[in-house]
Amino acid sequence: MAAAARARVTHLLRHLQSTACQCPTHSHTYSQAPGPSGKTADYAFEMAVSNIRYGAGVTKEVGMDLQNMGAKNVCLMTDKNLSQLPPVQIVMDSLSKNGISFQVYDDVRVEPTDGSFMDAIEFAKKGAFDAYVAVGGGSTMDTCKAANLYASSPHSEFLDYVNAPIGKGKPVTVPLKPLIAVPTTSGTGSETTGVAIFDYEHLKVKTGIASRAIKPTLGLVDPLHTLHMPCQVVANSGFDVLCHALESYTAIPYSMRSPCPSNPIQRPAYQGSNPISDIWAVHALQIVAKYLKRAVRNPDDLEARSKMHLASAFAGIGFGNAGVHLCHGMSYPISGLVKTYKAKEYNVDHPLVPHGLSVVLTSPAVFTFTAQMFPERHLETAGILGANIRTARIQDAGLVLADALRKFLFDLNVDDGLAALGYSKDDIPSLVKGTLPQERVTKLAPRAQSEEDLSALFEASMKLY
Amino acid sequence: MAAAARARVTHLLRHLQSTACQCPTHSHTYSQAPGPSGKTADYAFEMAVSNIRYGAGVTKEVGMDLQNMGAKNVCLMTDKNLSQLPPVQIVMDSLSKNGISFQVYDDVRVEPTDGSFMDAIEFAKKGAFDAYVAVGGGSTMDTCKAANLYASSPHSEFLDYVNAPIGKGKPVTVPLKPLIAVPTTSGTGSETTGVAIFDYEHLKVKTGIASRAIKPTLGLVDPLHTLHMPCQVVANSGFDVLCHALESYTAIPYSMRSPCPSNPIQRPAYQGSNPISDIWAVHALQIVAKYLKRAVRNPDDLEARSKMHLASAFAGIGFGNAGVHLCHGMSYPISGLVKTYKAKEYNVDHPLVPHGLSVVLTSPAVFTFTAQMFPERHLETAGILGANIRTARIQDAGLVLADALRKFLFDLNVDDGLAALGYSKDDIPSLVKGTLPQERVTKLAPRAQSEEDLSALFEASMKLY
Ligand SMILES: [Zn+2]
Ligand SMILES: [Zn+2]
Ligand SMILES: [Zn+2]
Ligand SMILES: [Zn+2]
Repeated sequence: MAAAARARVTHLLRHLQSTACQCPTHSHTYSQAPGPSGKTADYAFEMAVSNIRYGAGVTKEVGMDLQNMGAKNVCLMTDKNLSQLPPVQIVMDSLSKNGISFQVYDDVRVEPTDGSFMDAIEFAKKGAFDAYVAVGGGSTMDTCKAANLYASSPHSEFLDYVNAPIGKGKPVTVPLKPLIAVPTTSGTGSETTGVAIFDYEHLKVKTGIASRAIKPTLGLVDPLHTLHMPCQVVANSGFDVLCHALESYTAIPYSMRSPCPSNPIQRPAYQGSNPISDIWAVHALQIVAKYLKRAVRNPDDLEARSKMHLASAFAGIGFGNAGVHLCHGMSYPISGLVKTYKAKEYNVDHPLVPHGLSVVLTSPAVFTFTAQMFPERHLETAGILGANIRTARIQDAGLVLADALRKFLFDLNVDDGLAALGYSKDDIPSLVKGTLPQERVTKLAPRAQSEEDLSALFEASMKLY
Repeated sequence: MAAAARARVTHLLRHLQSTACQCPTHSHTYSQAPGPSGKTADYAFEMAVSNIRYGAGVTKEVGMDLQNMGAKNVCLMTDKNLSQLPPVQIVMDSLSKNGISFQVYDDVRVEPTDGSFMDAIEFAKKGAFDAYVAVGGGSTMDTCKAANLYASSPHSEFLDYVNAPIGKGKPVTVPLKPLIAVPTTSGTGSETTGVAIFDYEHLKVKTGIASRAIKPTLGLVDPLHTLHMPCQVVANSGFDVLCHALESYTAIPYSMRSPCPSNPIQRPAYQGSNPISDIWAVHALQIVAKYLKRAVRNPDDLEARSKMHLASAFAGIGFGNAGVHLCHGMSYPISGLVKTYKAKEYNVDHPLVPHGLSVVLTSPAVFTFTAQMFPERHLETAGILGANIRTARIQDAGLVLADALRKFLFDLNVDDGLAALGYSKDDIPSLVKGTLPQERVTKLAPRAQSEEDLSALFEASMKLY
């Protein structure tokens, strides 16, 4: 990192930290705080989590689990890349060995859409399955959750359960079939959450379904699947874990989120930080700080890759019950508007910004911006990431965390900001426009954002080093 | 604490720490380690946990939850002491307001027996309920779990699901009805666990049912119920939390527990310490260290009592997935053989040693004994409890932890050891005999125990200060 470049980035970030819009609409820095009545904020939080079974080789137990559940006709979902590889083979062997009939659906789309969800849903409806197994990354697990939901609720319209305002956000009251998730990447934590993300093609916007009811029954977290993952995949998945942990830990507290639901079924999964999600976020972050670099650099480092597989689940429990905010909200246009960037080591024939990369590149700017609300938490996480915080001033918390993040990314040879993905200043209005519909997550940020704020955050993320 | 008494106790403990039986049967200090083949130890662990909703006043949501579940005919279980008090009243109001029919069973016995379980089971079978609500302490929640289980499995014999060797320890494969647990004490953590403890009268021994399948669907952790609890009840419940945390954190690791189950349904809930239970144990312990004294001393300290209510659930998740060991194994004869001791501030007409007191009084001796196996963990917990561990020698870990525990108990004015409960040296053989059947938990201790070891542990627990 050249000294001059570093000075320029620091200047941009410092500006970001100190700006506070003084117009009438934005003179409150905390748009989510309870209103004058003080009565509408929530007073409770709920932790819901899949059962998690962890161990090297645990995948081979899946057939017995399904037999114990009494399943006779199982849907196995995966993608074309994985369908001939060991994780899927081990699952099929275990099913056969335990006499479980199954059908394979391997048309899962990486970065699923409403169209690809519908295709999987049709398959599920026709099959009349009594249980599901999802083997793959977040895309596969999310597709399988959607298939299970709509096959269990055959008279629902697709938009019924999709997050408002795009969908109707109806609560799920139908009983679902058991779903066992076998994650093969260490990033999304989708095996623990009740969230399924997809691109709504009509509006070209990322949205999802979020309900505790769709979380997997059981996550089989088998670190053997993480060996021999390409280094870039490990790195980007790890950045997703990093942002899940940082965002859920710095999200507004549940007791400042409003409105308070009138029925507990309306309490969102993304309910703000709380004493339980905090624990998972901090522990996930500690593992990332200690093991991610090792996991990236050595495909055979079973210890490091095992720890990251567990960290992915930990962070999933955290953000699945607290939510994410700006890095994720801003990431959707970053991946959606991709022009020519092709991620190295990803087996794809079209431009692609991996999810983990799209969330982490804005993180230095985002946390510089949000730190004024909970500076202690920002400083604490900087310390976990290796910054010397003993002599740091609390008002520099955001800059200290941003510096720690930039150093972390630089050490891992990460592309130098959004410019390296092919974005320039001219793209900022579109990027901002693409972020605005992500209010469901961006409103969980500890500091409210104007459009000008979002522009400044994208601008400060163009170059990192 | 007089200096002479302290020196004597320290001498006893030091002896305990250094003894190592050299006879052929006991020359291994770690009976649970894998045998020469190294093949039988487990390689995986599973975390299962009830959904937990936490908040002051959250009890009033219960009627809506049951309505959301489609329940129409609910069984409300509680005990006679509580049945006229606010927690039960709030639940009944919420059920009525949401149009849910219910029947009340308030014959739960404090310290339930197979007989009292059977009575509740009969009630449940007759009622043909479609959901359960348990309002009370561990006794009520455990009774309700048993009622739900056997009413859902009407052709089973009572001993079918009881832990081996007393019962048959059959795995639960029948589907149960939803159970919502509303804890009114801050100790057992039973709202999070799949464990139901009772006295098997015929053999005069404490045993239970342990299966992930019987854990509550939802725990409503409402700190308002902990206000105005008598101080002694708060203290003793807190000691239970303390021991759940310490025992689960120092239990043998899951990867040293044998045999490895041939089917995942046989993997016990008490599976040994693991990276997930460790997190819950440590966080529960931190809360105990920071808030228990305040919670005991001031019935109106909502913050301290709220934190302890959460710590009880945290420790429950920890020990519910890892197990407890010697303090709990030895506690059952301590409470079972009670002669005349009547706990202060407990509304009972018969001699009673509260569970939390019966587990904590042996803790200084127990951890002095076990520390040689995982001294770092013992020292770490001593540090959390306030000991200065910077200058401590690792070989003194057990003594340092024992000292921290004795100081903690002394500060809270706890009875001076088993002698204060009316026990003397002459009772030790009976106490040892009563511990032997508790192998299900005692074998999770990190160090194997001979009968002589158990005698020495009881002897060292006669006086603490
Ligand atoms: Zn403005
Ligand atoms: Zn993510
Ligand atoms: Zn011996
Ligand atoms: Zn206990």
